[in-house]
Amino acid sequence: MADRPQTLNDIRALLAAAPGPDSAAIAAAGARNGQLTKPPGALGRLEDLAIWMGGWQGTDKPHADAPQVVVFAGNHGVTAQGVSAFPAEVTAQMVLNFRAGGAAINQLSRLFGARMDVHALDLDTPTADFTQGPAMDEAGFLHAFLTGWDAVDPASDLLVTGEMGIGNTTSAAAVAHALFGGDPADWVGRGTGVDDAGLGVKTRVVAAGVARHAGATGLEALRCLGGRELAAMAGAIARARTLRIPVILDGFICTAAAACLHSELPGALDHCLAGHVSAEPGHPRLLGHLGKEPLLHLGLRLGEGSGAALAIGVVKGAVACQSGMATFAEAGVSDG
Amino acid sequence: MADRPQTLNDIRALLAAAPGPDSAAIAAAGARNGQLTKPPGALGRLEDLAIWMGGWQGTDKPHADAPQVVVFAGNHGVTAQGVSAFPAEVTAQMVLNFRAGGAAINQLSRLFGARMDVHALDLDTPTADFTQGPAMDEAGFLHAFLTGWDAVDPASDLLVTGEMGIGNTTSAAAVAHALFGGDPADWVGRGTGVDDAGLGVKTRVVAAGVARHAGATGLEALRCLGGRELAAMAGAIARARTLRIPVILDGFICTAAAACLHSELPGALDHCLAGHVSAEPGHPRLLGHLGKEPLLHLGLRLGEGSGAALAIGVVKGAVACQSGMATFAEAGVSDG
Repeated sequence: MADRPQTLNDIRALLAAAPGPDSAAIAAAGARNGQLTKPPGALGRLEDLAIWMGGWQGTDKPHADAPQVVVFAGNHGVTAQGVSAFPAEVTAQMVLNFRAGGAAINQLSRLFGARMDVHALDLDTPTADFTQGPAMDEAGFLHAFLTGWDAVDPASDLLVTGEMGIGNTTSAAAVAHALFGGDPADWVGRGTGVDDAGLGVKTRVVAAGVARHAGATGLEALRCLGGRELAAMAGAIARARTLRIPVILDGFICTAAAACLHSELPGALDHCLAGHVSAEPGHPRLLGHLGKEPLLHLGLRLGEGSGAALAIGVVKGAVACQSGMATFAEAGVSDG
Repeated sequence: MADRPQTLNDIRALLAAAPGPDSAAIAAAGARNGQLTKPPGALGRLEDLAIWMGGWQGTDKPHADAPQVVVFAGNHGVTAQGVSAFPAEVTAQMVLNFRAGGAAINQLSRLFGARMDVHALDLDTPTADFTQGPAMDEAGFLHAFLTGWDAVDPASDLLVTGEMGIGNTTSAAAVAHALFGGDPADWVGRGTGVDDAGLGVKTRVVAAGVARHAGATGLEALRCLGGRELAAMAGAIARARTLRIPVILDGFICTAAAACLHSELPGALDHCLAGHVSAEPGHPRLLGHLGKEPLLHLGLRLGEGSGAALAIGVVKGAVACQSGMATFAEAGVSDG
C-alpha cells in the first residue's frame, strides 16, 4: 500500500496503520507542566490541551506557529429541493470572496498567522441529489477525498478544515443520521436561515436520503450522502492523522465529515479537538457521539472553518504557557 | 471636581458623570454588520461583541490593536490565619517572575500583542487582617485605587486587569459576601489549592470579616475587606470607564473588585466583558449577580489576568470580522 490511498480500502488501511501520539512526549510535557510557576491545574483545560499537543508533536514544548486553514467548496444537487435560504450561486461567489480576502475566515486566519488555502471542487457540476442516488460515485468521491488529502501542508503544526457549500447542512444532517440514527429531525437545523417550512423540507429530504442509502456507514455514508467539500475535509483530516498533525474541528458540517472516519475506526479522530460548538442543533449531539468537549461556546454557525480558526487563539495560548513559562526553579518561586 | 479623584465621593461622582457608549456608533456598527458577507447572526456572540466594542470606541469599525494588561500585586494580613496553600513570600517572588517574563500572563500578553505593566503595592507591609479591623484606612485605600487609576494608558483600546496576592481569594470572597449576601460558604473556594480543613478556615475567616464590617458595601466593602491589588484593579476599571476603554474582567478576584463599583452605581461596569468563568465556585455566582455572560469556560483559576488575556483573542477575532470583512455589495455576493 502506497502512502496515498487509491481505494476506500486503502483509506481504511492507512487510518488503521497511523501512529498515535508519543507517550514519552506526553509524560515529559506533563512533568514540565507540573514544574511551571502556577498552582497545579490552575490553567484548567489549557494544561490538558498543551500536553495533548505535545503528544501529537512529540515534544514537551508544543507549538502552534504554523497553522494551516484549508477551505473546501462544493455544490449539492439536493439544493433543487429547496433546502437553503440562499441560492446555489452563492457557493462560487463566496469562493471569490475567500480569494479576495473578504470573508470571516480570511480575517481570522490572518489574525492568528495561519496559511489559508481555498479549493473549489467542480462547482459547475453539483453532486447528485442524494434522495435519487449516491451523491458521488467511487471515483468522484476519491477525487474529492484526495483533494483534501493533498491539500495538507506537511510542514504545518495545526490544521483547520473549513467548508462552503449551499445546501451542506442538509448533507451533514443526512450523514449524521446515517451514522448515529435517532430521528431525522434531531439532526436538522436552520443552516443559513431557513424558515419553519424550509425546516420541514430539510427533515423530509434527510429522511428520504437515509432511507435511500439504508445501512451506509463510514466512508460509504460520506460518499452517498455527503458532498465533495465534506469528502475533502475527511481527506485532509485523515492525512493529518497519518502525519500526526493536530486538527481543530469546526462546526456541524466539518464534524459530520470527520465522524465518517470515526465510524470506520474509533480512534481515527484522536488527533482532533472540537474547536467550538455551533448553534446548529445537531452539532452538540454529534460531539457527544464523538466524545469531544468543545473549546468555545459562542453560538457561531457560519462554517468556513471560522469557529475552529477562532479556537487557534486558545491553542496558541495553551502552548505559549506550556512552552514559554518559567519553572519554579528557574524563577526562584516557592512551590507551596 | 478634578479628573483625578481625591476622595471616595470624588470616585462616586466621576463614575456617575462618565459617558456611556456612543449610540450612533452602535447603530452604524449594527448596520455594517448586517451587510457583511455571512448569513444574519451567523457569527453568534462575535457580532454582539463587535457592535458593543464599536459603541465604546465610537466607530462602526472597532479595533483591538493596542490592548493593555496591568497586573497589581498585594499582600494580605489575613494570611496569618492560614487561608492559603502557598506562603506570602510567593507574591513578591511572582512579581519578579512577571518582570522576568516567566509567568502565564507574560506569555498570553505577548501572544496577543498586549502591553503589560506590573505594579507591586507595598508588599513588605501587608494590609491589616480584616477580621480585626479595616484592611486599609481611607488614605491607604485611595493610594492603591489611584495606582490603578494612573496605570491605565489612555491610548490603549482594550484593558485587562490582573492580580497576584497570596490570600486574595479569601479577600474576594469576603467582598462578594458583603455585597451580595448568601452563605459565607457560597463564596469560598480552594484558591491555589487548600484542603478541606483550609476551606473551613477560609469560610470562618470570611464570616468573621463580614460580621466585623457589617453593612459595608461598594467602595467601603473594598476598603474594609479587599486588598491593595483589588483596590487598584477597581481604580483601573473606573478610569477605563471615564475614558470609554472596554475592559475584559478576569476571574473571581478581579470580578469581586469590579463588583464594588457596580455596588456603588449600577452601570459602572457597562464597559466590562466577562472574559471567562473560573473554576473558583464563587465566580459564576458573582457573574450572575452582575448579569455578565463569560466568553470562555475553560476551568482556569490562576488569576494574573490570564483568563481575560486569553479572551483578548476572541475580542480580536470579533473586531477583525466586523472591521475587515467585505460587504455583500463589495464582494458581489447574493444576500439571500
